Parts: sequence; C-alpha cells; structure tokens
Amino acid sequence: MKPELAIVKIGGNVIEDPAELQRFLRHFSGIQHPKILVHGGGKRATEVGKKLGVEARMVAGRRITDTASLDVALMVYAGLVNKKIVGQLQGLGCNAIGLSGADANIIQACKRPVSDIDYGWVGDIEGINSKALMSLISAELVPAFCAITHDQKGQMLNTNADTIASELAIGLGEQFKVTLYYCFEKQGVLRDKDDDHSIIPNINLEGYQQLLADQIISDGMLPKLANSFRALQAGVSRVCIGSTDMIASNPGRYTILSL
Amino acid sequence: MKPELAIVKIGGNVIEDPAELQRFLRHFSGIQHPKILVHGGGKRATEVGKKLGVEARMVAGRRITDTASLDVALMVYAGLVNKKIVGQLQGLGCNAIGLSGADANIIQACKRPVSDIDYGWVGDIEGINSKALMSLISAELVPAFCAITHDQKGQMLNTNADTIASELAIGLGEQFKVTLYYCFEKQGVLRDKDDDHSIIPNINLEGYQQLLADQIISDGMLPKLANSFRALQAGVSRVCIGSTDMIASNPGRYTILSL
Repeated sequence: MKPELAIVKIGGNVIEDPAELQRFLRHFSGIQHPKILVHGGGKRATEVGKKLGVEARMVAGRRITDTASLDVALMVYAGLVNKKIVGQLQGLGCNAIGLSGADANIIQACKRPVSDIDYGWVGDIEGINSKALMSLISAELVPAFCAITHDQKGQMLNTNADTIASELAIGLGEQFKVTLYYCFEKQGVLRDKDDDHSIIPNINLEGYQQLLADQIISDGMLPKLANSFRALQAGVSRVCIGSTDMIASNPGRYTILSL
Repeated sequence: MKPELAIVKIGGNVIEDPAELQRFLRHFSGIQHPKILVHGGGKRATEVGKKLGVEARMVAGRRITDTASLDVALMVYAGLVNKKIVGQLQGLGCNAIGLSGADANIIQACKRPVSDIDYGWVGDIEGINSKALMSLISAELVPAFCAITHDQKGQMLNTNADTIASELAIGLGEQFKVTLYYCFEKQGVLRDKDDDHSIIPNINLEGYQQLLADQIISDGMLPKLANSFRALQAGVSRVCIGSTDMIASNPGRYTILSL
C-alpha cells in the first residue's frame, strides 16, 4: 500500500491573521505522515506594492503581473510570508524547507500565452519534478511552497496557489496516497452560500455535475472544484475543502470530494 | 581523498549590477564540483525600507535590526534577491535551491546577547546542520543562501553573510576539501589600499600576523581576514579573496590565504 501524503493549501485569510496562522501551523505540524504546505499571498502584497508605488494593474477585471508586481510577489510571497512560515514551523519542531517552484526546479511553467489579454509574468504549470520533491521528502523535510514558479530560462512567474497544490498532488499520486486539503474561510462547500451551516459533507463526480447543472456552486468555488475533480481524475485519492480545523486532530465538519 | 567543495560569497557590489551578477552566475555555474553560494543584501534593502517608511536605525554607528527592518531583510534578501538568483542559475542549467538558515534547520543561531548595544534581531551562529546540507548536496542540488538564520524557536535573525560563508565552510570541512571564496570589489588584499595593483598573492598565518602588526590591513578587510583564518584553523582548506573573476576558468589575480 502507498504511504499517505497530505498537501495543504492555505490562503490569505489564514496568512493575514497571526493567531489563526499560528493555530493552523500547530495543526499542520501535528500531521504525522509526510506533508506539504502551499500558501497564497494575501493582501500584504497589495499593501507593500502600494507603498512601493506599484499599483495592481487590471485589464478586463484580471490582474496583470508586470515586472514591478512580480518583484513585489517575490518579496512578499517568497520572502516575508514563506520564511516566516518556515521559521514558525521550525519553532514547532516541523523540519520545513521553504520553496518556490524554481528551487530544485520542482515546478516548471511557461508564461501564459497572450490571447485577448497579456497577463504578464503569470505561469501555467507544465510539469512537476517529482524526483526532486521525493528526495526532499525522503530526507524527512516538509516542503512549504509559495505561489511562484519559473520557466527554466531564468524568468520567475506568478502562479495560482490552488493550481500549484493540485499539480503537486497529481505529480506525487504515483508514489503516495495523496489527500489534498483546500483551506478557506468557510467550513466547506455550501448548498446555500448565505447559510454557513449548509455544508455538503460529500460530493462525488455525479453530485458535482448535478451541483453545476443546478447552478448551486458560486463563482469563487467554481475553479476550486474544477481543480479538485481534475486532481481526483488524475490519481489524487481525496480532496477536502473546509476551514483549517479540518486538519486538526478533532476536525469538525468539512466537504470531502471523491470520484 | 575528500571531494572538492567551493563556497562562494558575493556582496552588494555584484548583486546591484545586473550585468555583473549574470557574468558571475555564469562563472559560478561553470564550477564542475559541488558548490554553495552565499549572498549579502546590498543597498536594495535600504531603498525598499525607505519606501516602506522603515528607516535604518543606527546606535553608536552600528545598524540595529528592529522588527520592521527584519521584515525588509526577509523581503529583499530571502525573497527578491535570493529567488532571482535561483531563477537565473536554473536558466544556466545549475540546479540551485534558495535557502535561509531556517530552511531544513541548516543554520542555527541565537539572538546576539545585549551588551552595551541591543542589536535587535541579529543572529550569532551556533551550529551548522551539515547532515541536512549533505543530503541536499548528495541530491546534486546547489544551495544558495541568503544572510538570514533562525533561533529554532520561530524567530528569524539577520546574520552577517561573510560569517555564514565561513561557518558553512567549517561545518563541511570534515566531508569536503573546502575552498572558500570571498568576492568583493577589489582583485585581492592590497598592500596599499590606494593602489589596486598592490595585490598580495599569498598570505599565511605568519604573514597575516605581520600585516596586522604593520597595520597594513584596512578596516573593512579586518573581519574578513579574521573570519578567513578562523576558518582555516578549523579545517577549511583554502580561502581566496578577490573579484568574481577568481572563480572564472581564466581567473586572473587574487589573494590566497592558507595556514
């Protein structure tokens, strides 16, 4: 039987609240089998960017990563946020190693092709170097990824953290029984977006298609579920969506996705 | 016989000049045996700090690292500078992994004890986790360190890059025949600080003591040479001081220190 691996993605809501982050990291450190953390950026990058005179540039409602914005992402995601998380995990006895996708060439991407919009330095993932990642995990290290990848030609690229988490999960599906956890501000996928108690405990592929047909899935959840089912179809064992409590020893309610 | 290892430290003068940095990284990538890069920060941190409203605080001529300055160091050294170097090295086919001392718990430090001055979040190195470092080198990775360490209790610490380089060299002296390279803006240790051609080609311990007695070593060079001879006495094979050209295939002139 394959050994277990947990891949846990956290977003801005956890990162921006020091008490919540520390609580999450304590839960995360408690996971007894191999694990990987993936974190988004949060509003800190926007704040730092503003102070540095770098305005978030939007085209047709989409954020564009120009050279100055990429520098801010490198500073805030790969520097400040990533290293603070690593330091705190080390303080909790968890042997973390902070990484971007360029480090050890683990996440290979290409600049998103220009169609109607040129997104700038945004990366679409092309491949995961699971051999390099395995050598870190074998050395009992706990990789903590920020949402930055590279094109293998010297260019760093801003990349969606949810996608990084699902691609890592897919890339390690052969070696591990992978559970992918998407932590967010709600306790799970909601049947009624205005009712925090309407958590759907289990969704399989058929149920997902029904929820889509019934237009029950709201905007922000659509790409998360699409990513999740793509990962499940590519060999990931389970995807869990909920609050950070779902990785605690006493997890409470959350949504489990499976095929 | 022990295998060779090169540890190369670069400072602000290389980092701040994109063409010079690219030239250096090309030379560095060309080193055919195991190697480690250590980089300082440069003026970029001061610039970014100023824009963010974080002024460098000085007490008795010494820079103090308060919480806001440490955040800037994490952003600029561990984020912007370190990840750009990793990306560029990957572009040159060199399988770099960017690290702070907290990552994989490789450099253990403690906050500098308060004497006359409280330096703030500045770390004095207590130990090198050579086992963790060896597992990365064995995986054919090229560690690239920024000048940040940690106290193993969750606190990141600003640390002198020259000292990091010499401590890493000492920590790996048992496993490797280590050459430590200190790159700086001159071609070597000068007999006359106003004459760039007065490079001293070789300095042994006796010669070093004579140079000290004759007050030929100027201020900035004093700690570099002290670090170097400490490293040599602790088992490092050779220390080389000069411009980045000394690691090129056609190295030119530089200073070699030995016991």
